[in-house]
Amino acid sequence: MKPGAFLSRPLDARSPVPQGFATFVASAGIRNHARDIAVVHADAPCAVAGVYTRSHFAGAAVRASRTQLAKGSARALLVISKNANVATGVQGEADLDVLLETLSQQLSISRDDIQTAATGVIGKRLPVGRIAACLAQTRERLSRPPDFLSFAEAIMTTDTTRKAVAMRVGKSVLVGIAKGVGMIEPDMATLLVYFFTDARIPQPALQSMLTQVADRTFNCITIDSDTSTSDSCVAFSSGLAGPVETNAFADALLDVASHLAMLVLRDGEGVTKVFTTIVEHAESDAVARAVAKSIANSPLVKTAIHGADPNWGRVAMAIGKCDRKYQIDPQRTRISICGTCVYPAVIDEATLSALRETMAAAEHIDIRVDLAAGHGRAEAWGCDLSPAYVALNSHYTT
Amino acid sequence: MKPGAFLSRPLDARSPVPQGFATFVASAGIRNHARDIAVVHADAPCAVAGVYTRSHFAGAAVRASRTQLAKGSARALLVISKNANVATGVQGEADLDVLLETLSQQLSISRDDIQTAATGVIGKRLPVGRIAACLAQTRERLSRPPDFLSFAEAIMTTDTTRKAVAMRVGKSVLVGIAKGVGMIEPDMATLLVYFFTDARIPQPALQSMLTQVADRTFNCITIDSDTSTSDSCVAFSSGLAGPVETNAFADALLDVASHLAMLVLRDGEGVTKVFTTIVEHAESDAVARAVAKSIANSPLVKTAIHGADPNWGRVAMAIGKCDRKYQIDPQRTRISICGTCVYPAVIDEATLSALRETMAAAEHIDIRVDLAAGHGRAEAWGCDLSPAYVALNSHYTT
Repeated sequence: MKPGAFLSRPLDARSPVPQGFATFVASAGIRNHARDIAVVHADAPCAVAGVYTRSHFAGAAVRASRTQLAKGSARALLVISKNANVATGVQGEADLDVLLETLSQQLSISRDDIQTAATGVIGKRLPVGRIAACLAQTRERLSRPPDFLSFAEAIMTTDTTRKAVAMRVGKSVLVGIAKGVGMIEPDMATLLVYFFTDARIPQPALQSMLTQVADRTFNCITIDSDTSTSDSCVAFSSGLAGPVETNAFADALLDVASHLAMLVLRDGEGVTKVFTTIVEHAESDAVARAVAKSIANSPLVKTAIHGADPNWGRVAMAIGKCDRKYQIDPQRTRISICGTCVYPAVIDEATLSALRETMAAAEHIDIRVDLAAGHGRAEAWGCDLSPAYVALNSHYTT
Repeated sequence: MKPGAFLSRPLDARSPVPQGFATFVASAGIRNHARDIAVVHADAPCAVAGVYTRSHFAGAAVRASRTQLAKGSARALLVISKNANVATGVQGEADLDVLLETLSQQLSISRDDIQTAATGVIGKRLPVGRIAACLAQTRERLSRPPDFLSFAEAIMTTDTTRKAVAMRVGKSVLVGIAKGVGMIEPDMATLLVYFFTDARIPQPALQSMLTQVADRTFNCITIDSDTSTSDSCVAFSSGLAGPVETNAFADALLDVASHLAMLVLRDGEGVTKVFTTIVEHAESDAVARAVAKSIANSPLVKTAIHGADPNWGRVAMAIGKCDRKYQIDPQRTRISICGTCVYPAVIDEATLSALRETMAAAEHIDIRVDLAAGHGRAEAWGCDLSPAYVALNSHYTT
């Protein structure tokens, strides 16, 4: 993941947008009067790439999108927010069918040309009549050029900030949009993230870049170790700006994705501080990731970060609890926090006190672990655990 | 784990105590003036059984005790509290050596007859001089009959309640003592737990019973998914009351251990509610345990429990995020909370509202999951996540 100096810029009214897309957003009153329906329509078939949650309880929309992806191209995207349509069984699938049918008629496209997602409360039926009535206005209310700012707003649930960034790649434009603040430890995919570009990227290349980038960005972050049933990360390429240099596009995709991942983390429920865990010289990348995630997800490390407490003993604990089969030798392990080696160095009270001040002042804290066991390396990007996280999540459905 | 109607009773001044033991407790001023040194001396060699943390960062005391256990018998136990002597390297081992040497001279026993443990802050050196000076008074200050109440108090760190229970088994007595409130998801062992009995149990039987009981009790609880570097669970049998019926003793051990595990959970940092997750008809016991632990450790389930919110969608989420290789089919899965089937049943608002009231009133909440995939079964005993947990852990070392 890139460390923070992003080339991509937050999307605003003057940002460039990729050619070939139109949008439609509306409110079907699913939870309140906020916008909860967001549609992107492509003028012509786009190359499409996607990665999705691996949850056993993946929702109807994820299953439909995964099937759609096999086609390799898509014409539209439908996102429903404020209700995830998850754990709703056969009824949930039937409801989604009705909505996809309505939208395909509006846009004169085939039903299997639509990528779709739903996000919000789990286990409640969609108000399918109200949503279908909204969608019946799509054709006459399409916004062209596309209004990606409104799209980014419409897919928010408990997000407090809009997460949309853009950058130019050669003659093309890449826009990235994400939502998510909790239930976030993506695995192979993430939250809801969408990329739109007019660069002409062949579908297989787009899929392979997206998979790699998701693994290096969204799969490295964790807010609370919980994995959503609706995670989807999908890229659309209209190709209207013609081909661009592949490496330049891959770099741009990494930049935009890192930027979005950081926006998600900073807007995490109750988050006051973000911390990076970098594990180096593990026996493999997989072991490095397991150790980094163990630290990033430890409630005791997270509360210490919240209190700006250089409690490195808890970092040692979180390394220690990893699978016995990993090569982890306390005699060879090195731990440092914000550049100060805390283990196995003997730290005096003055150093500790200085470190405490550094941590209190920093918005971003750095934990490095060297396992001296091989060439594996991984990062995990986490956040503190604050009383606000608990307060926010104690009364969500009620 | 037994559900709550225990035969064992909290230890008090009138409780029976097993024959053959004496105790010594003192304060070496490790963190403050509270008692922090606790010794149990056995008149003659005891059969000893133990299970310990599997942490890579296991402390010097755990390593010494594991080696000692190979002997099969022990004469004494030394517990140091308020400092774990973990991640203290070669110095930590040398310090422990000095203390074991001092105690062995006092009690005229061999150094390899001593089981030992240390619990508290990680990464600080022990004040070895002050502790040795304390231990030099052991012989003259031994309490006989043993004062297990003081012992239970001396091993506490941030515990707010003493955890000691006792029961009779035939002509013998079994006493169990535990400490622990945070950094608790024991794995193969647990926190600090000690059993003392005068029943004559052969060492191999004692070890096998202890391993099984720890697996059915302490290994089923989780306060915060973090695993201590100092977990130790050790049983001492003096044999002075003669043999007892093996099944009766095993039942008593399970009762005492369940009782202690429940005391640990109820005293968990910031805990206001305890909840049991019972997973049935999984493809194996191991899968059932993984699913049960995933639910018990989910911050989103834990905060919902705190808010008495019947947010069963989060239970589905926590099942869903388990390893892809498990046989978990949302179509066959059943979830119930406090006896009310919430999935896949369609629950009306009145039922939900009644369930909310039940949850708000209950100290103990019951979540049952049926995977309809085989004969595996497991329980996990967890607790809510409250703002108090965060507050308690944000400023521990500072």
